[in-house]
Amino acid sequence: MKYELYYWPMIQGRGEFVRLALEDAGADYIDVARSRRKGMGMAAMLRLMEDAARPPFAPPFLKAADQLIAQTANILLFLGPRIGLAPTDEADRLWAHQLQLTIADLVTEAHDVHHPVSSALYFEDQKPEALKAARHFTSERLPKFLAYFDTVLGRNPHGADFLVGSQATYVDVSMFQLLAGLRYAFPRTMKTLDRKHRRLAALAERVASRPRLAAYLSSPRRLPFNEQDVFRHYPELDAR
Amino acid sequence: MKYELYYWPMIQGRGEFVRLALEDAGADYIDVARSRRKGMGMAAMLRLMEDAARPPFAPPFLKAADQLIAQTANILLFLGPRIGLAPTDEADRLWAHQLQLTIADLVTEAHDVHHPVSSALYFEDQKPEALKAARHFTSERLPKFLAYFDTVLGRNPHGADFLVGSQATYVDVSMFQLLAGLRYAFPRTMKTLDRKHRRLAALAERVASRPRLAAYLSSPRRLPFNEQDVFRHYPELDAR
Repeated sequence: MKYELYYWPMIQGRGEFVRLALEDAGADYIDVARSRRKGMGMAAMLRLMEDAARPPFAPPFLKAADQLIAQTANILLFLGPRIGLAPTDEADRLWAHQLQLTIADLVTEAHDVHHPVSSALYFEDQKPEALKAARHFTSERLPKFLAYFDTVLGRNPHGADFLVGSQATYVDVSMFQLLAGLRYAFPRTMKTLDRKHRRLAALAERVASRPRLAAYLSSPRRLPFNEQDVFRHYPELDAR
Repeated sequence: MKYELYYWPMIQGRGEFVRLALEDAGADYIDVARSRRKGMGMAAMLRLMEDAARPPFAPPFLKAADQLIAQTANILLFLGPRIGLAPTDEADRLWAHQLQLTIADLVTEAHDVHHPVSSALYFEDQKPEALKAARHFTSERLPKFLAYFDTVLGRNPHGADFLVGSQATYVDVSMFQLLAGLRYAFPRTMKTLDRKHRRLAALAERVASRPRLAAYLSSPRRLPFNEQDVFRHYPELDAR
């Protein structure tokens, strides 16, 4: 199966959670909006958003044969079993999906720190609000989320090597990306939190060293973090 | 199967999307945190959040035999097929779930209008920020989301009676609740948008008149909307 991934070409964003799963699995896929091949590129993405029988509200979305699937966690729910990155048991799959949705919630909250008023305004136009939002995010919400994921890892009856079961799933891959993004955006806060949650940090490290993922991460296909992205490094928003 | 629903007892909130599906299906369930029976009530909910082998990050969550499932859309993904409110085809189920996740995104954005800085602060302590956020929400985001759902309804090859396929699913039930909450919170904005999207308004009306749902809505089990809830009516946040 050849997959088509559709996402904004200049940022990692939410698309990266899907991209990392595809890369880790060695799946055959085209990154359509970044492709220069005829009929590909941004125009192809925008056309599909407009015309699809089942249109996505926003990227990322995935085309698999004649199915078009949007919403990051939903894409991974579909993709996981097909690329060997999901548990086999039905209850475990729901649990993995539940964790992925909780990761998605934290991603949204991390984004909203620099855009608390509106994603249609520039950061510079909502900076006082962002400063207030950041204080609460770094002191309350972020610690609460990471403590939760650490608890989940600690309660895995198969041990703390993976978040779900005894093998890597897309949730582990997403946890790596989540922590990478948070460390980029909030290095001071994360220094403290990483020390507090060593198990979680160790999980991210193991994921990053998986051969196909390591190869991807050091390739030009991995876009650098930047200040147009979901995770942004504005030092004034990080803890003192 | 007897289900146990766990949610904050004083608000509709996100739990209402699950509750409405259970009520529409005539499913056998206990609303644990609202129950006065021995071993039930808030204490039972908080205990489970603390001690569960697979803990939820936040309510709502559902207990079905020995499975504990959290995240509203994930609960409905699990529950839908079991209570006759999901499509039978796998691709259709993913599509329904995708729409449910998009509904969840709009619910979060509607909530964040009155709490743009932090959900740990009172509305009164972030009112200037909320006024700015509301302007963007009512003029840009909300119209964009509703136009999207209207397009989805219009493109259903089985006709505009349901969002997915030719029978009612939990997505239709959730769309009713979404519009009800938005009309409560933003009556002036929604007057304009309802006029613009008559198909969507008609769908919500049909859902509300389904016999079991109508009985529930006029029962004391349906909590009134209020200003502790996700959807809040602060007239100054509505369009002029």
